[in-house]
Amino acid sequence: MDRRAIEKGLAAMNGFIKSFFLAVIAFAAVTVASWAQADGGLRATGDLGIVIERATGSVKIIETSGRTELRRVEGFGDLSHASAVYSRDERYAFIFGRDGGLTKLDILTGKIVGRVIQAGNSIGGAISQDGSLVAVSNYKPGGIKVFDSATLELVADIPAIAADGTQSKTIGLVDIPGQKFVFSLYNAGETWIVDFSESRTPKITKFTDIGELPYDALVTDDGRYYIAGLFGEDGLAMLDLWQTEKGITRILDGYGKGEEKLPVYKMPHLEGWAKAGDNIFLPAIGRHEVLVVDQRTWKEVGRIPVHGQPVFVVARPDGRQVWVNFAHPLNDTLQVIDVPSRKIIRSFQPGKAILHMEFTPRGEQVWVSIRDANRVDVYDTRTFERLAEIPAQKPSGIFLAARAHRTGL
Amino acid sequence: MDRRAIEKGLAAMNGFIKSFFLAVIAFAAVTVASWAQADGGLRATGDLGIVIERATGSVKIIETSGRTELRRVEGFGDLSHASAVYSRDERYAFIFGRDGGLTKLDILTGKIVGRVIQAGNSIGGAISQDGSLVAVSNYKPGGIKVFDSATLELVADIPAIAADGTQSKTIGLVDIPGQKFVFSLYNAGETWIVDFSESRTPKITKFTDIGELPYDALVTDDGRYYIAGLFGEDGLAMLDLWQTEKGITRILDGYGKGEEKLPVYKMPHLEGWAKAGDNIFLPAIGRHEVLVVDQRTWKEVGRIPVHGQPVFVVARPDGRQVWVNFAHPLNDTLQVIDVPSRKIIRSFQPGKAILHMEFTPRGEQVWVSIRDANRVDVYDTRTFERLAEIPAQKPSGIFLAARAHRTGL
Repeated sequence: MDRRAIEKGLAAMNGFIKSFFLAVIAFAAVTVASWAQADGGLRATGDLGIVIERATGSVKIIETSGRTELRRVEGFGDLSHASAVYSRDERYAFIFGRDGGLTKLDILTGKIVGRVIQAGNSIGGAISQDGSLVAVSNYKPGGIKVFDSATLELVADIPAIAADGTQSKTIGLVDIPGQKFVFSLYNAGETWIVDFSESRTPKITKFTDIGELPYDALVTDDGRYYIAGLFGEDGLAMLDLWQTEKGITRILDGYGKGEEKLPVYKMPHLEGWAKAGDNIFLPAIGRHEVLVVDQRTWKEVGRIPVHGQPVFVVARPDGRQVWVNFAHPLNDTLQVIDVPSRKIIRSFQPGKAILHMEFTPRGEQVWVSIRDANRVDVYDTRTFERLAEIPAQKPSGIFLAARAHRTGL
Repeated sequence: MDRRAIEKGLAAMNGFIKSFFLAVIAFAAVTVASWAQADGGLRATGDLGIVIERATGSVKIIETSGRTELRRVEGFGDLSHASAVYSRDERYAFIFGRDGGLTKLDILTGKIVGRVIQAGNSIGGAISQDGSLVAVSNYKPGGIKVFDSATLELVADIPAIAADGTQSKTIGLVDIPGQKFVFSLYNAGETWIVDFSESRTPKITKFTDIGELPYDALVTDDGRYYIAGLFGEDGLAMLDLWQTEKGITRILDGYGKGEEKLPVYKMPHLEGWAKAGDNIFLPAIGRHEVLVVDQRTWKEVGRIPVHGQPVFVVARPDGRQVWVNFAHPLNDTLQVIDVPSRKIIRSFQPGKAILHMEFTPRGEQVWVSIRDANRVDVYDTRTFERLAEIPAQKPSGIFLAARAHRTGL
């Protein structure tokens, strides 16, 4: 072995060490990047939420502390008229698409962790009190399906076969305490309570003849009063869930429609009702009015003239304000009612097609979807200052993770 | 250079490479361990909470989905009579110790990330609506101090100097909407509203002569009515925060004490009040009774005889049940009132010194501290079955992260 050979050997060795060093540096860099990502992923979810992008079947994950967008996730199918509920730990959003898709999204990682196409056409869902069951309301075939929230395995298939033997679309599906769900049969005019408290084979209680064409329903935030709007008649059908033996009571006959029939551009959402103090604020159907109802007597105690036909009538969490959006063609306006005076204290025109409003749980912010502006605006509810704007493709529903802790959504 | 020298050189080089390899392997092992830890730490916080271990100045982090203990954290100082609030993202608990310590705990990692001794003796605190400010109520020196929730830097020091020039202990500190806090001056009988909405130099509004010795207070969950209990007289002092110009109103004269003076073993907690439907349930002072008050008229509408002097009177989130614990020496019993019938439907004797009850946000579980049994019990609120028991050293307050989303705690 001569010296040149040794030097060449050493040089090769150096080359080896050099590439080894480079590999180690690269490895360290990847490691640091992974750490950063892992550490970046380590966060709580109490201030997170999602915005539905209806046209593109995608979702934006946002956070309300800094009021920013975190990421965009695709692959949810048809999200027109989509809604969402959350797992009890506020980690997973269950997203109900119009095409019957039920998709489970991990809002920490932005990954879709489960997806089933469970019907042909569906409308909303709910999660049980203990978080173990997710129910979906279906138009086609009419009925509800209930899934295990961990695995998305089917737990119960409950076709909505009415007393007259026909199968009905289901609407107004909500969760109530005691592992129960309540929903109504659109075509048949029935309300059903489905009770999973004893087993995964539910006990079903049916109320028939509740009225013509229940089109949507709400439950009060204590889970006690279930109220279905009736498209086929004036008035609402109410069920006191603490005294179901009393059956359905009709309330607010003449509700909203008034004397003169008006064209209805969009049916209002009853889940967008507002409870403020002792009163409930409801959208009047087809009229440019918000109705004020005393919750003790279930009588109308006032009407507030507003800009257009109300769609969502939503109370700020403290009940001091009620925010209202409107049906086409007046859907470029948002109005704020001061509850004690029942006066409009603010009108905004942030853009065309204001589809949804969502308050942060303690009410300091409201997030507003403006579909045709491809934008979500965030307002300070005290000063009405616009705090942020977030681009989004045709945004519709906004659902914050804090919903996990609430009943009846 | 001879061959042996070269071989020695190569051997040394191999040794270098060998140790290099070992270093790389060690580095990789550390890295993988860090990854594993980071991934293990990746979880949401909506189902987390803490249990105060009062005697040892420690805290247990628990979760309510599987009903287990996650870890124990030490170093909080004197936690007798401690309480806690949460950051808006549900990641950090701010723990108020009796010794004036304010400690910020990361419930995801179990690490204390900030701690200040801000007074000599303190009693509770609150977090502002937007989550940016944490306020602490102090006995010594009397007043409140307000801290930046991110850094724990002092933002405002507000000594409670009453109209007569004396410094008072402060009690009944709560947050209300609009970046405000409300508290009362024990010695002076005043209530103050501190408003941080415009700047970090607050505007202060004072109400004097509210009554003798306000000892605790509550605010209704909409943040509207602030009600202080008076130790020096019968009755409560109420302030309508939507109409502060009306000043303090006296309600429920004769509240609780009744005709005959009874020894009071422990002052009840007013923050443990219960709103269920249209009624408020309050502990009667010194009597074996729970008072039922109509929230519209603020008149007493009933009394429910109970096992002992009530301490906490807490409604299940749906308002269908009210759970009550009792003062020494009858503090081994827990009773459940059915709200519609106002009847006791269950009594438990799980052990001596039942100090606190905390419901999961949707009410399916209640967590109960049993100090002398060194145990926390978890009950199903529908079946009353005991679902879990968790060992804890002299447990007192239980605070779930879902409190982050609520006003007035």
